[in-house]
Amino acid sequence: MKAVTISKTNTEPTYHNASVTDIPKPELTEDGQALLDVHAVSFNHRDLWIRKGQYPVFLGADGVGRIAEVKGNSSKHKVGDRVVVMPSTGWDKDPRGPEEAYYILGGGHVNGIFSEQFVAQQDDLFKAPDHLTDAEAAALPLAGLTAWRAVFTKGQVRQGQNVLITGIGGGVALLALSFCVAVGANVYVTSSDDAKILKAVSLGAVGGANYKESKWGSHLQRLAGGEPFDVVIDGAGGDGVKTFTQILRQGGIIVCYGMTVKPKVDYTMAAVLRNIEIRGSTMGSRVEFKEMVDFVAKHKIKPAVSQVWPGLESAEEAFNVMRAGSQFGKLVLSMKNSSKL
Amino acid sequence: MKAVTISKTNTEPTYHNASVTDIPKPELTEDGQALLDVHAVSFNHRDLWIRKGQYPVFLGADGVGRIAEVKGNSSKHKVGDRVVVMPSTGWDKDPRGPEEAYYILGGGHVNGIFSEQFVAQQDDLFKAPDHLTDAEAAALPLAGLTAWRAVFTKGQVRQGQNVLITGIGGGVALLALSFCVAVGANVYVTSSDDAKILKAVSLGAVGGANYKESKWGSHLQRLAGGEPFDVVIDGAGGDGVKTFTQILRQGGIIVCYGMTVKPKVDYTMAAVLRNIEIRGSTMGSRVEFKEMVDFVAKHKIKPAVSQVWPGLESAEEAFNVMRAGSQFGKLVLSMKNSSKL
Repeated sequence: MKAVTISKTNTEPTYHNASVTDIPKPELTEDGQALLDVHAVSFNHRDLWIRKGQYPVFLGADGVGRIAEVKGNSSKHKVGDRVVVMPSTGWDKDPRGPEEAYYILGGGHVNGIFSEQFVAQQDDLFKAPDHLTDAEAAALPLAGLTAWRAVFTKGQVRQGQNVLITGIGGGVALLALSFCVAVGANVYVTSSDDAKILKAVSLGAVGGANYKESKWGSHLQRLAGGEPFDVVIDGAGGDGVKTFTQILRQGGIIVCYGMTVKPKVDYTMAAVLRNIEIRGSTMGSRVEFKEMVDFVAKHKIKPAVSQVWPGLESAEEAFNVMRAGSQFGKLVLSMKNSSKL
Repeated sequence: MKAVTISKTNTEPTYHNASVTDIPKPELTEDGQALLDVHAVSFNHRDLWIRKGQYPVFLGADGVGRIAEVKGNSSKHKVGDRVVVMPSTGWDKDPRGPEEAYYILGGGHVNGIFSEQFVAQQDDLFKAPDHLTDAEAAALPLAGLTAWRAVFTKGQVRQGQNVLITGIGGGVALLALSFCVAVGANVYVTSSDDAKILKAVSLGAVGGANYKESKWGSHLQRLAGGEPFDVVIDGAGGDGVKTFTQILRQGGIIVCYGMTVKPKVDYTMAAVLRNIEIRGSTMGSRVEFKEMVDFVAKHKIKPAVSQVWPGLESAEEAFNVMRAGSQFGKLVLSMKNSSKL
């Protein structure tokens, strides 16, 4: 079976080779497991970081496939079901954080899903929403789970609230946008690219500001008619917090799910005096994953897919697009056995 | 009537004079007001800061007194009732923050309570718990309200949780300790003074660590039997957050009610990856104040009083003690009309 793996031979010392290699087909060893024919997989920035640091490993946290074989008497799924895969293990339901040692697929010593077949616990498989193509379903798990926890568990976003989502264009930010729109929040975005702001508006955002403008905070306030913001969903970190504190209402919430711009945020007395909260947010629990998939099915939400390549062999090309950072939505590899692209 | 006021004549340019001056006795002008004979008042660091920046103003946010006169038909209080005064205005009940412009007594253009008599809205007066002396009741309002919001509204402290309260010795920290002990939490403290840690243990803390030790974090972990902490109640700011992140459980909460050590906290990816939240917390609403006073009465909690002086004339001496920072609990001035010291 083919899989995308990385190894230490490379031209750039900090960017290990990723290549398609032949590995033994995985087998079911325990009751409750299922074997998937993988239909499509998608990329996360995490996959890029793993190429820079860890090896060898089967890459990939995100994928969709069809069940080829099951072991044991569990009736949760049957052969032929199309399912998405919970992208992590060790976290069942505690809203605060993982109950056990927590692993994400395709990193450390946990196999990834960038391969033709994949073995998972049936409990970690959930019916793929019917309205999604394989490419869209493959784009959902990790970004959807991260966005779900950020928006609802941590941000507590509700109908009628003003929400700012920064850095629109990334997979998490775009799904956060769709989730907030679906519950009736008024969503505003930031980007360094005006075209991405326009696309966000076409997806339901009220408007947005280019954060390369010096007065992007006042611009957002004007767009919101002078009303304060309730929640900010941020994956950038760095200096934005100063502006967020100015435009948030008393007691407003900044959900921080990453720090791609600068790995530090200054929390100051200005924030304390306005009762502002910064809430760190990671991926989520199995319960949150199920809620997210059900919500996506109910509201017919579609993850944005920027580009689809046929076959695992295109992994290197997809990695190069991700390094350039110009995509709007997820990058996907589809397999020859995909039936619904 | 005598009152403690500040004026711009002074020897230190950044520390204005505070003196007892004769001012007109206040009068009731609106229905719903009540006139108090003030029995005792207490100091907050805020009063010190106000001496450094603002003038002229009647000082003081904290006090207890007996109702001397009422205006209008409100039946909430009657002449002779002993009451504590809500130390701020503009915040009725929203758990997120003030609904209106927010003022604390004794600052800006709002009169303080360091005076022989004081006029307040009846709605801002609450029966002083019977088990408290006047000095203890005067020590309660501002610190009690701040501690209440930090511990319960923001920290959501519950029975059985492990709670760390830093900088024990201050008025807010000591009341936070009593509140946490009253609901059955396991409280640990830090201080730079071992004697203060011992006093905290006598008030119900399990134990504490001197933060001048290099390994105070591991010391606290050992004291807690290796169990993680659920909540940190912090008024210091600065670098402690790095250690808090290590000893908190996944999803743990750091409540920040001030930054006396350093006006900035670094929030990092280490905190995000553990779902840690920093929650800014100020004084609270009228609803929180009432809950706090009722809780203090029910659990017979006593604010720690470090020292009591007779008469407003001792204000300067009390200010000097506060500047030195060696007190354990609140500094109080009692009036000649106090009946219950």
